Amino acid sequence: AMDGAPPPTSPTGLSAYVAVSQLLGLTLLATTGAWLGRYRGGVAWHSPLQFNAHPLCMVLGMVFLQGDALLVYRVFRHEAKRSTKALHALLHGLALLIALVGIIAVFESHRTKGIPDMYSLHSWCGMATFVLYLLQWFLGCGFFLFPNASFSLRGWYKPQHIFFGITLFILSIASCLLGITEMLLFKISDSYSHFVPEGILANTLGVLLVAFGLVVSYVLTREEWKRPPLAEELALSMDFKTLTEGESPGG
Amino acid sequence: AMDGAPPPTSPTGLSAYVAVSQLLGLTLLATTGAWLGRYRGGVAWHSPLQFNAHPLCMVLGMVFLQGDALLVYRVFRHEAKRSTKALHALLHGLALLIALVGIIAVFESHRTKGIPDMYSLHSWCGMATFVLYLLQWFLGCGFFLFPNASFSLRGWYKPQHIFFGITLFILSIASCLLGITEMLLFKISDSYSHFVPEGILANTLGVLLVAFGLVVSYVLTREEWKRPPLAEELALSMDFKTLTEGESPGG
Repeated sequence: AMDGAPPPTSPTGLSAYVAVSQLLGLTLLATTGAWLGRYRGGVAWHSPLQFNAHPLCMVLGMVFLQGDALLVYRVFRHEAKRSTKALHALLHGLALLIALVGIIAVFESHRTKGIPDMYSLHSWCGMATFVLYLLQWFLGCGFFLFPNASFSLRGWYKPQHIFFGITLFILSIASCLLGITEMLLFKISDSYSHFVPEGILANTLGVLLVAFGLVVSYVLTREEWKRPPLAEELALSMDFKTLTEGESPGG
Repeated sequence: AMDGAPPPTSPTGLSAYVAVSQLLGLTLLATTGAWLGRYRGGVAWHSPLQFNAHPLCMVLGMVFLQGDALLVYRVFRHEAKRSTKALHALLHGLALLIALVGIIAVFESHRTKGIPDMYSLHSWCGMATFVLYLLQWFLGCGFFLFPNASFSLRGWYKPQHIFFGITLFILSIASCLLGITEMLLFKISDSYSHFVPEGILANTLGVLLVAFGLVVSYVLTREEWKRPPLAEELALSMDFKTLTEGESPGG
C-alpha cells in the first residue's frame, strides 16, 4: 500500500454499521442523562444523588467504551497492529476506571442510606462481569501487549480472549437491563404499570442498549469484516512459523 | 467412512462441553421447579397459580429447548444433513409452542387479576424476542427445509440465520433474567435484601441461565467444533458450483 497502490479502503457496509453504532452509543448516553436529569434529580457526588453516578458511569464505561474498544480492530484496519492494540487496551482501561467510579458510587450511596449490598441478581451479574472484565484486561496485557508469552501460547489464548471479550460485553449489557428494571421497580413501582413517561424512557434505554449490543456484535462477528493481516505481519508470521514450526497466532 | 474406515469420532472436548450443557439445562429446570414449587405454591392452569406456568414454560422452551436445537449440528455431526436440519426445526418448533403456552399463561393471569400488560422492560424484550424467534423459524423453514430458495440466496441467508439464531438465544436468557428480577421485586421486595433463601435460589437460577448460555455459545462458536461437510455433501456442492458458477452455501 506504500508504493503507489490505491489507498486502503474499508469493506462496503462496515463504515455504515460503525456509524450507526456510534449514533446509538451517543443516544444511549443522552437517554441515560435525560432519565437521571429529568426524573431522578441529576447526578452529584457528595449528595443523596450520588447513586445516580452509578448508571451513568456503567453505561459510559461498561457499554459505550467497552463496545468501542472491541471495534478498534475493525475501524483501524490498516494501521500498525501494535498501535491498534495499544488503543484497544487503553479504551478498556478507561472503561474499567469509569466503571470503578460507578461501583464506588453505589457502595457509598448504600452505606449512607443503610441499604445492604450485593443481594440482587443485578449486583451478582454486574460484579461478576466487572471482576472478570478486569481479569481479562490483565490477561490481555500480559499475553499480547507486553511480549512475555510465547508465540504458541498467544495463539492458544487469542480465540479465548475474543470469545470472552464479546461475552463480557454482552453480560455488561444484560447487567444494565437488570439495573434498569430494579431501579424502576424501586422508584416508580406504583406508576410503572400505567405507562408513565419515565417508565417508557427507561424501557427505551433498555432497547437502545440491546440495539447497540446487536450492531457491535454483528460488526465483530462478520467474517468478511475481520481485520486482514498487513503484508509485513504476514511475512513476520511466516518467519516465525518457519522458526518455530508451530502455529501462527494471526489466524 | 462407509468403506471400512474407522467410525467417525467427535473432536476432543466437545462431548464433555455438551454433557456439561445438558447437566446445566436439567439443573435449570429443577431449580425453576424448586422455586415455583417450594416458594410460589406450585404450578396449575385454571387457578391463581396460572402465572407460575409462565417462568416454567419460558425456561423450558426459550432456553433449554432453544439451546439444544442450536447444538444439534455439533452433536449429530456425522448424520445426514437433512435429518439434522429436520431435528433442528422440530426442536425450535417445540420450543416456540411451549413458549406460546407460557405467554398465554401470563396474559390470562394478568386479565384475571386486572394487571396491565406489556408495560415492563421484561415484557418488551421478551415479546420482541418471541416474535423475532417465530419469524426466524419461518424464514429458516422457507430457506433451508423446503427447498424453494435458490442456492445463492441460501448462501447469503445462512450467516444471517446463524448470527440471529445465537442473538435470539442470548436475548431469551436476558429476558429470563429480567423476569426473575421483576418477580422477586414483586413478591419478596421487603425480604430480598436480607438474603432470604428464595432470593438466593432465584439469583442462583439467574447465574445458571448465564452459565448455560455461556457453555452453549462456546460450543457453537468454536471454529474446530463446527460440523464438517460429509464427503457426499462436498461432492454435491462442487457439482452445484460448476453448474451455477455461484458460491457454495456449505462454507
